[in-house]
Amino acid sequence: MKKLLAYAESVRKDIDNLIFELLKGQPQELYEASMHLLKAGGKRLRPVLLLAIAKGYGLDEEKALPAAAAVELLHNFTLVHDDIMDRDMFRRNVPTVHSIWGEALAILAGDLLFSKAFEAIMMLEDRGVRHDLVVKAAKKLAWASTTVAEGQALDMDFEKRNDVTEQEYMIMIEKKTAALFKASAEIGAIIAGAGDEEIEYIGEFARNTGIAFQIIDDILGITADESKLGKPVFSDIREGKRTILVIYTLSKLNDKERSEFLSILGNRNATLEELRKAAEMIKSSGAIDYAKSIAKDYVSKAIDYLEKTSIDKGIAEMLREFAEYIVEREK
Amino acid sequence: MKKLLAYAESVRKDIDNLIFELLKGQPQELYEASMHLLKAGGKRLRPVLLLAIAKGYGLDEEKALPAAAAVELLHNFTLVHDDIMDRDMFRRNVPTVHSIWGEALAILAGDLLFSKAFEAIMMLEDRGVRHDLVVKAAKKLAWASTTVAEGQALDMDFEKRNDVTEQEYMIMIEKKTAALFKASAEIGAIIAGAGDEEIEYIGEFARNTGIAFQIIDDILGITADESKLGKPVFSDIREGKRTILVIYTLSKLNDKERSEFLSILGNRNATLEELRKAAEMIKSSGAIDYAKSIAKDYVSKAIDYLEKTSIDKGIAEMLREFAEYIVEREK
Repeated sequence: MKKLLAYAESVRKDIDNLIFELLKGQPQELYEASMHLLKAGGKRLRPVLLLAIAKGYGLDEEKALPAAAAVELLHNFTLVHDDIMDRDMFRRNVPTVHSIWGEALAILAGDLLFSKAFEAIMMLEDRGVRHDLVVKAAKKLAWASTTVAEGQALDMDFEKRNDVTEQEYMIMIEKKTAALFKASAEIGAIIAGAGDEEIEYIGEFARNTGIAFQIIDDILGITADESKLGKPVFSDIREGKRTILVIYTLSKLNDKERSEFLSILGNRNATLEELRKAAEMIKSSGAIDYAKSIAKDYVSKAIDYLEKTSIDKGIAEMLREFAEYIVEREK
Repeated sequence: MKKLLAYAESVRKDIDNLIFELLKGQPQELYEASMHLLKAGGKRLRPVLLLAIAKGYGLDEEKALPAAAAVELLHNFTLVHDDIMDRDMFRRNVPTVHSIWGEALAILAGDLLFSKAFEAIMMLEDRGVRHDLVVKAAKKLAWASTTVAEGQALDMDFEKRNDVTEQEYMIMIEKKTAALFKASAEIGAIIAGAGDEEIEYIGEFARNTGIAFQIIDDILGITADESKLGKPVFSDIREGKRTILVIYTLSKLNDKERSEFLSILGNRNATLEELRKAAEMIKSSGAIDYAKSIAKDYVSKAIDYLEKTSIDKGIAEMLREFAEYIVEREK
């Protein structure tokens, strides 16, 4: 963890400086709304991953920075829009964009972040990255944004269904979360001029890490300390998200318990007591341990792929820490 | 008009085929929602403009098609999101996306169109356009999407104000509407390998045409036949849009009339009778003739720029028709 944290610390300011440079503009209200979540915090996992990989294949961080800014901007665009769709009122310990500025401006603030992500990636050209590599990187970014939208559509659709399978859940989180991890890693490798096999392996490393990340995210939504999480715990239950925990729990309940559980799941008017009850049913089903073991399996797979790459050894060590951090984190 | 119409007719199928090819995917509901407005119609002005210009500078339409699809996808993305923000229920004679699928899926359908616009422009590479030109074109597309978002933010902000000036209105429509016309024209010239001066002149042609287009759009919102317009007339009045007509009318009214006019403007509960009354006040103020003369001035400016270019003469003739059509159209 120490190497990773030190590295993340060392590049964070550069990432943020470029992002906030890109988010200077008029009208002021729109740009303020766009910056809101970025200013509130966030771990910058995707840009750190991208920069580390670019460096591991021999590219200066300075040249890779626009791509790092791009993936973080894209990520924040999805957060702003998802919060509207999911009616989430808090994130990163602050009110969400739409709960401050209203839905109309929040839609637009998200759109602006999306647009700025593509402005950012095109800035690779100005830092001397080869044109063909800029195009290849931008294609990955567009692929990721399409895939994330598909994943979010599945996630919303699943809320209406009681027969979502674990396999369907895995496909959904692969699109909604793992795709942008994968694209971030691949873009880092691409712009450094890595070969196709290296790009594939490092992409698989990140894809598997991303899947583990989302599973742990779903666990933290039930178990985490609210102030560390930055948003209300149990919101997944209230919104009726079909997480791996819910799918596992449903498979373990008898008919009576199942109907009680389902009466709380997705009920926007559920009391805190009811939400706690549903969370208890999840915990006592063994779903948490089950999900954590699956997440660990994905981290193992990720590390297997990492070992197939010929990335710089010091960076590989850091990426291993990155994947391990994913399952150990508390927020 | 005849040359332009024949040309638009000849390329429309190719544009649409590529767009609908790009909009094949899962989940089905998301992709259906994304295609909805595109299937409902639309004039395809921006892609036709782009293709004509690319051709006028010597590039095969076949090679330019991905860029044409990109600008139309981007345009439709803005329509889907704007309809949510403006709470518009009809467009192109069909219910808007959010009024069929709900706001959450409509946000996502717009996001998907946005993403597909960038996927499309990157496909220029696959058709043999030089990498540096693909990057230059994609930069213009990103610039346009940022600028359109800024324009929409101004448009919404103006609804809350009674002191919007004609100059502010011009800046707003330049961003909201003219920017994408400009980018479409510039992209056409860029990918054909035109020089910077040509790109600038043809961009100015399209920018001025785009300004005229929006002014006429605002006039049609008051005067047009509802079935031709494809959406309720007077919706601009109901939404409180500060169009050039409204700004001009406000400058001509006495205090009593002004307060009556403002009581209707932006009142979502205004009766049809009240909306007609406000429209009458606009018409009798002379605003329509005033706005039309301004639009014509912009078309003249556009044509001046067109004449500075060295684009193919046949295409120049068609582009002149294009600009003249803008002010003569009835929908």
